[in-house]
Amino acid sequence: MRKITIGVMGPGENAIASDLENAYKLGQLIAAQGWILLTGGRNVGVMDAASKGAKAAGGLTVGILPTKNLEAVSEAVDIAIVTDMGNARNNINVLSCDAIVACGMGAGTASEVALALKNGKSVVLLTHTQESIQFFTSLCQERIFVADNVETAIALVKAILRKSV
Amino acid sequence: MRKITIGVMGPGENAIASDLENAYKLGQLIAAQGWILLTGGRNVGVMDAASKGAKAAGGLTVGILPTKNLEAVSEAVDIAIVTDMGNARNNINVLSCDAIVACGMGAGTASEVALALKNGKSVVLLTHTQESIQFFTSLCQERIFVADNVETAIALVKAILRKSV
Amino acid sequence: MRKITIGVMGPGENAIASDLENAYKLGQLIAAQGWILLTGGRNVGVMDAASKGAKAAGGLTVGILPTKNLEAVSEAVDIAIVTDMGNARNNINVLSCDAIVACGMGAGTASEVALALKNGKSVVLLTHTQESIQFFTSLCQERIFVADNVETAIALVKAILRKSV
Amino acid sequence: MRKITIGVMGPGENAIASDLENAYKLGQLIAAQGWILLTGGRNVGVMDAASKGAKAAGGLTVGILPTKNLEAVSEAVDIAIVTDMGNARNNINVLSCDAIVACGMGAGTASEVALALKNGKSVVLLTHTQESIQFFTSLCQERIFVADNVETAIALVKAILRKSV
Repeated sequence: MRKITIGVMGPGENAIASDLENAYKLGQLIAAQGWILLTGGRNVGVMDAASKGAKAAGGLTVGILPTKNLEAVSEAVDIAIVTDMGNARNNINVLSCDAIVACGMGAGTASEVALALKNGKSVVLLTHTQESIQFFTSLCQERIFVADNVETAIALVKAILRKSV
Repeated sequence: MRKITIGVMGPGENAIASDLENAYKLGQLIAAQGWILLTGGRNVGVMDAASKGAKAAGGLTVGILPTKNLEAVSEAVDIAIVTDMGNARNNINVLSCDAIVACGMGAGTASEVALALKNGKSVVLLTHTQESIQFFTSLCQERIFVADNVETAIALVKAILRKSV
Repeated sequence: MRKITIGVMGPGENAIASDLENAYKLGQLIAAQGWILLTGGRNVGVMDAASKGAKAAGGLTVGILPTKNLEAVSEAVDIAIVTDMGNARNNINVLSCDAIVACGMGAGTASEVALALKNGKSVVLLTHTQESIQFFTSLCQERIFVADNVETAIALVKAILRKSV
Repeated sequence: MRKITIGVMGPGENAIASDLENAYKLGQLIAAQGWILLTGGRNVGVMDAASKGAKAAGGLTVGILPTKNLEAVSEAVDIAIVTDMGNARNNINVLSCDAIVACGMGAGTASEVALALKNGKSVVLLTHTQESIQFFTSLCQERIFVADNVETAIALVKAILRKSV
């Protein structure tokens, strides 16, 4: 039977230190809940850090790669989905999750938050700027949640899951 | 030889009256320049209005449909690309254009602006809110341009085209 | 209003001389009918030859590129759709056409014929081997048509279009 | 670390009894090897039977759904990837596998075999007709393997995996 799947999205090469630290902790806590972690699958940034955190806590990790092969896959990804679709794979990332945490921001992450909202999904913005919070709240107030630390983000994910049952 | 292609993106069912009016004028002016108009192709909102404007001015219109058939195609689309990819087709919309005008805002349009930036494209935000302008400028200052009327939007598109030659 | 669009699919780098000759003639005859030609858009093989034939006859050409930019676009493509989706774009190729002519054969072309059948489209096999004709006929007898020259292929396309009206 | 992933592709609604029986056994044997099973994910035909076989043997199952939600997911799928891409998802199916077994035939399965060959993957044709074997062998002799029972198919998959290491 299908397992609950939580997405952690965020910058790749441009991730900052606090994003990576938060992503690692998110991965740990997601695994600790028995949830599957789903990311963009590459061996950099938030995807890589979250996957490593999940593996450190004994979790299962799925990576949806934009590339046509496994060259750039994170070593912490158990199940690699190879799309060869570039950034269009961002839509698959969000469609495949029960809830999404945006950990940090960049153009790719912004597209994932927007696609999540467009597809009826709920998103937790973790340590976002006021610009980001105000913009996404203006798009869809009822499915944007704001957290300033990892524990709050996980609590909000639980609330989203309870609501969607 | 490939023709210059300008995308007009914006809300579908939720477009407001001023978005539709601006989209129609954008379509007219794009056609008047001899450029191809590219939109999301459906028979509602900004896509439909822009395509009708372009046809009224004798232009050529391309619609990239999210659906698997032609049921919902705008009657003003000359060339319909049927993707059956839902919102993932938004990435194709922006990759296929030399410049993009975001006419109005919504979750789908936000994903297109973000995907455009991610893919190295430039975007004109036409009559956007302060939240939208501040957010996208924070993502990528050098490729976000702001216009408060259609004529300025077209002038900015010309500037983008000059720069990319 | 949407124009009738005919797809010509066939090998790229591995096309043989007779495929290229047939593709060029197909492009000419498709343009002469006032139909739009749709191909895979690259500057090699059947795609390139068909597009050149269509342009020589004053037609309009659409190319659905697998790549993320225009580097490999045929110079005879008027409207380039940039998908960045690799071979998954083959599904868009067939969904966007009213009828498809498979001019020559290879793994990519085989996927297009199969996807066309899966999506309810009709396909003309031009100068195919017995293996190809027997296999695809075994999959779907009523939507596979066989031609051994370009003129017959065009006559079969016309019959397909009459039937689908 | 990424786990070995074997794809089982075959008809959905049109699967015949022997396809379903073979698919179930394939699922069991794939799970018994410690490999992940990857299918098209829906609750019909070969996808469903293979997934059930794998779960009966304690395996892990991935389903790449063509739909935009989980309505039609097989109850035996652990990890559902929601693509909303229709038949274009067939390219993801084959790109994500180390080897593919085509269990039965139809237009969708034919597209997967062809896309697998196009993407450099090896395919085992299980209980195929002479038309199918001859056609796909004519496309790519070195990466098409023929089996007339499930045990032989698994032995061929092992040979493919040894070769690709």
